[in-house]
Amino acid sequence: MTAPPHEGHSARPGRALPDTQRGMRRRNLARVMHTVSAEGPLSRAAVASRIGLTRAAVSTLVDELIRSGLLEELGPAERPGRVGRPGSALAVSARGPAGIGAEIGVDHLAVCAVDLRGRVRARAVRYGSNRDGSLEPALERLTGLVRQVVAQAEGEGLWPAGLAVAVPGLVARDARTVVRAPNLDWQDADLGALLPAELPLTVDNEANFGALAELWLGDGTPRDFLHVSAEIGIGAAVVFDGRLLRGTRGFAGELGHVPVRPEGPTCACGGRGCLEQYAGEKALLRAAGVEPGEDRVGLLAGRAAEGDENVRRALSEAGTALGIALTGAVNLLDPQSVVLGGALAGLAPWLLPSLREELAGRTAGPVCPVAVSELGPQGPLLGAAHSVVRAVLDDPSVAAGRA
Amino acid sequence: MTAPPHEGHSARPGRALPDTQRGMRRRNLARVMHTVSAEGPLSRAAVASRIGLTRAAVSTLVDELIRSGLLEELGPAERPGRVGRPGSALAVSARGPAGIGAEIGVDHLAVCAVDLRGRVRARAVRYGSNRDGSLEPALERLTGLVRQVVAQAEGEGLWPAGLAVAVPGLVARDARTVVRAPNLDWQDADLGALLPAELPLTVDNEANFGALAELWLGDGTPRDFLHVSAEIGIGAAVVFDGRLLRGTRGFAGELGHVPVRPEGPTCACGGRGCLEQYAGEKALLRAAGVEPGEDRVGLLAGRAAEGDENVRRALSEAGTALGIALTGAVNLLDPQSVVLGGALAGLAPWLLPSLREELAGRTAGPVCPVAVSELGPQGPLLGAAHSVVRAVLDDPSVAAGRA
Repeated sequence: MTAPPHEGHSARPGRALPDTQRGMRRRNLARVMHTVSAEGPLSRAAVASRIGLTRAAVSTLVDELIRSGLLEELGPAERPGRVGRPGSALAVSARGPAGIGAEIGVDHLAVCAVDLRGRVRARAVRYGSNRDGSLEPALERLTGLVRQVVAQAEGEGLWPAGLAVAVPGLVARDARTVVRAPNLDWQDADLGALLPAELPLTVDNEANFGALAELWLGDGTPRDFLHVSAEIGIGAAVVFDGRLLRGTRGFAGELGHVPVRPEGPTCACGGRGCLEQYAGEKALLRAAGVEPGEDRVGLLAGRAAEGDENVRRALSEAGTALGIALTGAVNLLDPQSVVLGGALAGLAPWLLPSLREELAGRTAGPVCPVAVSELGPQGPLLGAAHSVVRAVLDDPSVAAGRA
Repeated sequence: MTAPPHEGHSARPGRALPDTQRGMRRRNLARVMHTVSAEGPLSRAAVASRIGLTRAAVSTLVDELIRSGLLEELGPAERPGRVGRPGSALAVSARGPAGIGAEIGVDHLAVCAVDLRGRVRARAVRYGSNRDGSLEPALERLTGLVRQVVAQAEGEGLWPAGLAVAVPGLVARDARTVVRAPNLDWQDADLGALLPAELPLTVDNEANFGALAELWLGDGTPRDFLHVSAEIGIGAAVVFDGRLLRGTRGFAGELGHVPVRPEGPTCACGGRGCLEQYAGEKALLRAAGVEPGEDRVGLLAGRAAEGDENVRRALSEAGTALGIALTGAVNLLDPQSVVLGGALAGLAPWLLPSLREELAGRTAGPVCPVAVSELGPQGPLLGAAHSVVRAVLDDPSVAAGRA
């Protein structure tokens, strides 16, 4: 272990430390933004008292944030029932930077713009297979959608602070390279080279963005949980103490390849009897006797709701397999809860009974609760867009530099 | 997410903030201790330049640490080949606080004292079963051993800064209560009530302390790894970014209850086909046809080394089961490595081939490396003692308060 980083100021008198001061200013800008974002509208005095700086210091920071378009002063009409000098109530800007989130699904593309207040201000979806044999056509279509959403957002006075893309595959820790997305037939694909270069880019696994959305937007989401989602494959994300556990190569969360029945059918990963062989979309459709169509999850959910016995049995057996894999994960991680998100959320009514039975039957003490995400399939897209917004709140000086 | 904590100093002039100043002083004391511990012997000037404080400020801190017995000034004889004013080289004290580590095994008790320099200065072991039907007799024996080691350490001029106890069971997050130690027949046992009240107490799972020892003392241990150990049961500890992942209730790391063959034999945990049913000590001894004796691991290792086919087959099959469970864990966590510690280290030569084969056969990409701990069965005891030492380095003001 090394010594803790130097967080205070140097005691050496009369010697300027520009790096430390820049760091401090950056942290203070972030504290103002986070405070107004979480509790606003607030007056300058209220911000100052909450973060323990002087009013003068806060005013300097606030002025800079207003100039950069990150904060705005509300007029009297926007502050019903509040007293005080007009213009003194601060709110995060509804016309400043926006986070652009994108999702590359196997059969759809989606893009949205979220403002600093967390509201979706523009959105576009395009259906159709993205398994073109190469990635260029899909990324061209995505670029088109991104430009369309950016134009729409700009029409509302917003400007794009960055682009975050959710993909159904393993992403390297450079946050650009898709190492493996078997359901898209992509391998070692650098998305950075093919997406709009004018926007700072972050690429991540859809399960990771789904889990972050749950953490940031979910109602009462704990800080330690396991988020399980599906888009043909089955992915998971481990959130520990409010942070995503990414793993050494960025590949953590591969619940789909946890062996459920070690002598079971061979899997594309090289293993046998992986969870995906029992609860992945392909296995599910086969077991249910359903022809793969476009909205496969909707199809399965519809048939199950109509009482189709084959579909219900297939979903129940998938729930059992999920329960076995999750027993292992829960024993290893002791999370506060398991959240079913993404496509699994829509199938939860038919997966949950056998899943919970398996988990309870294999646990001596209290059973880890399993919840269903309210964000459902929207999670990854929202998580992507919000990751850009949070990056702005965490370091407003970057966005401020642009204005 | 809340605003980041206030790490800087208040800009409000003329207003004293005693809490912040105390916090800053505490942090600075810790920085001095960690710097000297990692790089000493060092002069005051060298410490000042490394942590970015003035020499005057460092001297004040150093004087306080010397008065408290946490640092000492080396005489010229102790500084061969070094020049400079005698007494100017600082080292962490070899006569200050000591960490007392203890281990409650199923068939032994061990206690040791480690000084601030990380050296074991006193040690005592007592063999004999601790399954007495109640916990009092074992804890009485342990108290006797602790007093013996403390007396020995005091004879060398050390004083005990705290007691950390490793147990083969689940420990609640209060770090006192053993919730379940099935192999000792303990349940909901508050060790705090039965151990020497004069020492600050921390109780933790033996796998956790083993992993911490690996992290702190291992040669080139990564910051993300999975540590697997055994003492009758099989435990694991997840270290992520240099921190132990404890789980919501403190129960993370229960690798022994990951289902390996879901329709397999019933386990005491309520599950079926858990790893422990294939690779736990009891299962191993049964499969090997070996009568349980006192040094069971030594017995198995001895027989395997002599070429006993039954023992070798049993160990190889246990390695296969470990490989299946670890495939799941590696897929979930993507650690930099897996470390076999505790009793497993001694059996590694016969476990590893089938374990590695299983892991490689079930993995598409690069296979997670599996290493054997060099600390072996000493890990948990050393981890316990070092956890007390590190607590002193992290907050010397507590120990300073005593002197």
